[in-house]
Amino acid sequence: MQQAALELFTRDGYAATTAAAIAARADVTERTLFRYFADKREVLFDDGQRLEHLLLDALSAGSRVVAEALSRALRAVAVDMQPRRELLVQRAALISSVPELAEREVWKIHGWTRSMSRTLTSWGIDELTAAASTEVAMALFRAAFTRWVADGESRKLVDLLGEAETAVGLGWGFAVVDGSPEV
Amino acid sequence: MQQAALELFTRDGYAATTAAAIAARADVTERTLFRYFADKREVLFDDGQRLEHLLLDALSAGSRVVAEALSRALRAVAVDMQPRRELLVQRAALISSVPELAEREVWKIHGWTRSMSRTLTSWGIDELTAAASTEVAMALFRAAFTRWVADGESRKLVDLLGEAETAVGLGWGFAVVDGSPEV
Repeated sequence: MQQAALELFTRDGYAATTAAAIAARADVTERTLFRYFADKREVLFDDGQRLEHLLLDALSAGSRVVAEALSRALRAVAVDMQPRRELLVQRAALISSVPELAEREVWKIHGWTRSMSRTLTSWGIDELTAAASTEVAMALFRAAFTRWVADGESRKLVDLLGEAETAVGLGWGFAVVDGSPEV
Repeated sequence: MQQAALELFTRDGYAATTAAAIAARADVTERTLFRYFADKREVLFDDGQRLEHLLLDALSAGSRVVAEALSRALRAVAVDMQPRRELLVQRAALISSVPELAEREVWKIHGWTRSMSRTLTSWGIDELTAAASTEVAMALFRAAFTRWVADGESRKLVDLLGEAETAVGLGWGFAVVDGSPEV
């Protein structure tokens, strides 16, 4: 359904595309669409919960050194996204052109940040450190992602994460690729 | 008007408070309120443009070393906000309890981030560095701000910025207070 929504929003405009049209394009009934999504906007954010789980699972999957854990979590998402660049470029273009979608996107990422921060405080990390580290991690991710979906960009998202980290003077390890899956 | 809106939203609830009630409380006509604000929500974001100007002016006020410039910009806002902690605590509590306001707040901060990033690229800084640095700067600010408005917090916002920076392993200089105004 996300693919159908993206195609219609891009072709006909966000405002002009109805939930009914998305359902028809995805070959499901409108009733089915509304069983999964509150409104047409949410169809575009379908993948959000899966990515949040991926992020939180990776965060807790190994070392509990904050920078290492955050680095691991963000790399997991970057590796997951890499094969879908084309779709994500199209989605990013649409989102940045519709304020209603852009607000929702920023808010969703804010939610991930808070979830990660809660995970860190549950490990005994103090609140300011947890909040600052997760906010900074997501900031690096956002900067790298924005670059990754730019016209003509050919670097991998995971490598852009490493470059963003170096650019601000952090050494969290995004650049470490030993043993990482080839993406 | 912001004070009036904040009082009414907090006392009667956001949904139940009308623009007319805010105007009456602030002793202006509804027409005057709507001359300045698109809707009742915007009254709470009245200060946003002034703060954005403060941020951008401070960014460009001295050294063009990225970390120093960002540090200076954020400190200017922190120093400006310090005397208004009580109001800002009340505002933060309201905003976090109303999703519609929380989304708007996150979006506003995203706008500041983009403005700062554009300033840096106009200095010749490459886009990834500009985006990563400003995103990280605002991430630190948000983490420090969230701590600053928490119950029982007595540290200054500018000092919390320094602590947030130290917590993530950056040395951008928020902790430097020589010659800074006493706040």
